Amino acid sequence: MTVKAYGAHAGDQPLVSMDITRRAPGAHDVQISIAFCGVCHSDLHTVRSEWAGTQYPCVPGHEIVGRVTAVGAHVSRHKVGDLVGVGCIVDSCQHCDDCDDGLENYCTSMVGTYNGPTADQPGWTMGGYSEQIVVHERYVLHISHPEHQLAAVAPLLCAGITTYSPLRHWHAGPGKKVGVVGIGGLGHMGIKLAHAMGAHVVAFTTSASKREVAKALGADDVVVSRNAEEMAAHARSFDFILNTVAAPHDLDAFLVLLKRDGTMTLVGAPATPHPSPQVFNLIMQRRTLAGSMIGGIPETQEMLDFCARHNIVADIELIRADEINAAYERMLKGDVKYRFVIDNASLAA
Amino acid sequence: MTVKAYGAHAGDQPLVSMDITRRAPGAHDVQISIAFCGVCHSDLHTVRSEWAGTQYPCVPGHEIVGRVTAVGAHVSRHKVGDLVGVGCIVDSCQHCDDCDDGLENYCTSMVGTYNGPTADQPGWTMGGYSEQIVVHERYVLHISHPEHQLAAVAPLLCAGITTYSPLRHWHAGPGKKVGVVGIGGLGHMGIKLAHAMGAHVVAFTTSASKREVAKALGADDVVVSRNAEEMAAHARSFDFILNTVAAPHDLDAFLVLLKRDGTMTLVGAPATPHPSPQVFNLIMQRRTLAGSMIGGIPETQEMLDFCARHNIVADIELIRADEINAAYERMLKGDVKYRFVIDNASLAA
Repeated sequence: MTVKAYGAHAGDQPLVSMDITRRAPGAHDVQISIAFCGVCHSDLHTVRSEWAGTQYPCVPGHEIVGRVTAVGAHVSRHKVGDLVGVGCIVDSCQHCDDCDDGLENYCTSMVGTYNGPTADQPGWTMGGYSEQIVVHERYVLHISHPEHQLAAVAPLLCAGITTYSPLRHWHAGPGKKVGVVGIGGLGHMGIKLAHAMGAHVVAFTTSASKREVAKALGADDVVVSRNAEEMAAHARSFDFILNTVAAPHDLDAFLVLLKRDGTMTLVGAPATPHPSPQVFNLIMQRRTLAGSMIGGIPETQEMLDFCARHNIVADIELIRADEINAAYERMLKGDVKYRFVIDNASLAA
Repeated sequence: MTVKAYGAHAGDQPLVSMDITRRAPGAHDVQISIAFCGVCHSDLHTVRSEWAGTQYPCVPGHEIVGRVTAVGAHVSRHKVGDLVGVGCIVDSCQHCDDCDDGLENYCTSMVGTYNGPTADQPGWTMGGYSEQIVVHERYVLHISHPEHQLAAVAPLLCAGITTYSPLRHWHAGPGKKVGVVGIGGLGHMGIKLAHAMGAHVVAFTTSASKREVAKALGADDVVVSRNAEEMAAHARSFDFILNTVAAPHDLDAFLVLLKRDGTMTLVGAPATPHPSPQVFNLIMQRRTLAGSMIGGIPETQEMLDFCARHNIVADIELIRADEINAAYERMLKGDVKYRFVIDNASLAA
């Protein structure tokens, strides 16, 4: 099956319209007509060869929502007409401890939704900037949000689960003081989710101008991280800090805000290392510095259900596929509140 | 009360015999005739002003064992004649969450056994390189080892609890694969304790010559950390790694050996930072990098009881007080297996 897509033929070229092929659905596959696809920073990094190993043509996109158009003979979880989503993962070994624990994201054979190894032509996966996708049912999620919210649901598939998973794992909830560093695609979801979980949420931003928007997202308090006095007022008080900033920065400024046994978890990997954190700040209050990568399939479903129940979606700006190159430039400047989402109907135009 | 001690009058001078005063025991105090005192790297750092804030004269020593010679009117936990120990802590606020949780080591008002603030003359605490010490009963530990082991019990009060506390906190035990990095004063205790807890223990050393000694201490396996092939064989396999090495080194080499949700805990703070760890190594398997500092009083008692039950003591070299300056030089070269302990009877000589 040939479908329209948007992708790049090389790292130094803009994304353009192209035709790609999708496999016929196998016994366990779900075929999805993609309605919308969110635009993640990883898309840009990959398509521009800023990370190693990009294969071309490259069609990015791993915040996919749409409707089921066909299912294989053995598919039991989804049926034609269902609203569904696909996130960052389209395959894994399905038999290791990670897969057995529903943490396919940590399976060493995890296959990304784009630029991952596959038997399909041309040998690597193609993502959601396309009209259709065919995915094993295990990696397809139910969406119970109302259909009019569908575009704003798309970013939950990566930005949502990437923040939900560590917030749950480190027990954000009532009675807990939770910090969220950075108010972007990930951070704005982190604030909404931590607030809905019942935590006392403090947003950290470098820009005083974001104070009010952070509060509107659900922050109980906002700290301008460049203001040493504001920072000092929160010393040794946080149970958990979710740090969404990938740019290299001073981790110690946040580590000292953790109380005893507190954890700061990084969900962004900087291109060059952060300044080395002071071991003393870890030792003194038995603090931990951790990392977390997206989330597993069962917890992605849990997150989607949680968001539907709490009426949580991303704040988005809808674009046509042919606006993607301009959107990347704006994303690089942080000029988006807070996620671009492609209207995939525009691929046919 | 005037007692003999060994200490320094300035950071650039050797330790010499001196007289110091001890307070008369208050209602909650225990007076202890010190039999032995272990020699910790912190003693050297402090007495030589390698850390900020050393006040002189400085009498170090926080691995103290001896016998109770007097108790205050309200002392209920100890009686004259008891074998007791004192570790790194001689006071704390006694009413914060940390103190309430028995983690006086994390109380921000914790008073160290030497060079800590006190109402006693001369205004800072004096440690265990002395004939007697007077300590609030809360910070005095029972020793149930047989008396002939007493000298080798002394290092349990710092090296023992510093390794026991993180091993317990991060659940070292049967079915867990635990690494211990460094085979020195701390590391040799870490190996013995993790082995006694029932974990599968792997010792890491830079020196192939330590293979046999590590096994004799209780390691099930020994890895020479400079051997990339040996290291690679343990990739993604450890539940917990206790890193006792304070010298700056490549943390990533060990982080990649942790399985998903594994933790590496640092108990030594380097004078200059470690190379900044790769965030990617934390994110990929949800690993954590943590710190831990000594331990609380209840868990110190638990550790002493555990060691008595399992017949665990430190491997020591007994010295006279007037050998301390030479011992420091040997300690700097790593030329001790694995802890010097002062025979405090030699102070009177």
